[in-house]
Amino acid sequence: MNEKTYPVVSSPRDPRFLALRSLQTYQGRSRTQRYIIEGIRHLARAVEHSASIESVFLDPSVLSNPFGQKLARRLRQHGVHGTRLSRELYRDLTLATEPQGIGAVLKQRWFPLELLCATRNSVWLAVESIESPGNLGTIIRTAEAAGVSGVFILNPNCDPYDPATIRATMGSLFSQKLVRCSVPEFKCWAKSNGVSVVASSPSGLMDYRSLAYRFPTALIVGSEKQGLSEQLLETANFVVRIPMQGGCDSLNAAVATGVLLFEITGQRKE
Amino acid sequence: MNEKTYPVVSSPRDPRFLALRSLQTYQGRSRTQRYIIEGIRHLARAVEHSASIESVFLDPSVLSNPFGQKLARRLRQHGVHGTRLSRELYRDLTLATEPQGIGAVLKQRWFPLELLCATRNSVWLAVESIESPGNLGTIIRTAEAAGVSGVFILNPNCDPYDPATIRATMGSLFSQKLVRCSVPEFKCWAKSNGVSVVASSPSGLMDYRSLAYRFPTALIVGSEKQGLSEQLLETANFVVRIPMQGGCDSLNAAVATGVLLFEITGQRKE
Repeated sequence: MNEKTYPVVSSPRDPRFLALRSLQTYQGRSRTQRYIIEGIRHLARAVEHSASIESVFLDPSVLSNPFGQKLARRLRQHGVHGTRLSRELYRDLTLATEPQGIGAVLKQRWFPLELLCATRNSVWLAVESIESPGNLGTIIRTAEAAGVSGVFILNPNCDPYDPATIRATMGSLFSQKLVRCSVPEFKCWAKSNGVSVVASSPSGLMDYRSLAYRFPTALIVGSEKQGLSEQLLETANFVVRIPMQGGCDSLNAAVATGVLLFEITGQRKE
Repeated sequence: MNEKTYPVVSSPRDPRFLALRSLQTYQGRSRTQRYIIEGIRHLARAVEHSASIESVFLDPSVLSNPFGQKLARRLRQHGVHGTRLSRELYRDLTLATEPQGIGAVLKQRWFPLELLCATRNSVWLAVESIESPGNLGTIIRTAEAAGVSGVFILNPNCDPYDPATIRATMGSLFSQKLVRCSVPEFKCWAKSNGVSVVASSPSGLMDYRSLAYRFPTALIVGSEKQGLSEQLLETANFVVRIPMQGGCDSLNAAVATGVLLFEITGQRKE
């Protein structure tokens, strides 16, 4: 393998390893505006969507998959820098139970709000504060599958580039337009783009299936425990309700997002 | 507190503690047909639904919530046995990051297949093999919220009484009819009860929103990775497809279950 010429890093104090490891923390990612991904599927999808790959890290003793090896060669041929890590150091960088021996550092990509236009049939998702990184990843995966045009992140503590979030997106992060802004900025954008903001709440008066979503629509999603903040709920043009049976007063946040988004996008196809 | 008269257990080798701890394993639960729950919300819902509470375990130093204390007193007055555990032993029994100081041992409740009747508008869920206990719990919670009449567990290794599953059900396990049977038994039950079996698969020809679910319906759900087994897919009268955008070829299993179940039950209300 060509990547044999990548330098070997085996000391846990090596600054190259420490730089990689710092990307496991929110502070490290925030300061550098970088993040890490691990595994062949994620890397392949990053390449496919022209994500900004800055460097790769390998554990050649584990990277046995021929497609993964080809991917590594291709990146090297394109001049992407890299390091070879000892098995212990590589393991330390990933949440995977079965690491695949190839990972990468990428530049975070945030779409500028001022360039974002809402077309007539577009659907958007705005996430306030999902506590569980895995849930946030599942929500982003669901949004991609439903065909949303972009995901707003309205809370600086909500980080789509968390490794556990990326894992749960199953590779659907790279094709998504991510926008970070405040609630007032989101409100202003929605208004000036003619986007109707839809919230879901147990106190909503209208069944979510009764509303005709015939306009650019943004669904807003709050935290698992507290739901939507007052400030965000006030931006909503419509508050709908998912009717629930039994003793249930709520759904898992990702399930609720799926039920609502597929209703909105499903109606448009009819 | 009355429960001061419960015996104190503080040795990790005490057989009473070992009996509790064995219920954290599949083998222990399977052998005894018991399971454990932790936390006030779960216990309150168990009481509400007359679940079969066999004994309680407490950490009085943590049980400060007045409602939780009242619950403990009430159970004791009803003659429920119990133990007081040291903080370390109690911690060892729960997955909660903030244990609430009260838990219980319950008898597993499986509804006998031969007594199960499908009414005209009933909706059922049959789960083959969900690998993630948390996902299985979210699926059971979603099923309750959608109003299904019962959940079939078609694989002996799929355990709704796993502590991580119970946590994710958010207390919706106790009101649910759970049925354990084999795939052929399920098929036979569906046929003799006039229940249409619906599967979802990327190869399904019909959009899930195009089918009119005007009959007793059972939705079958396969594993996150492999989907439905051939054997189970063959029981399906209808194979529908959730249309997906972007590069997505699948949804999280709980999200897909939510999207499908709320379409089925939503149509019936219209």
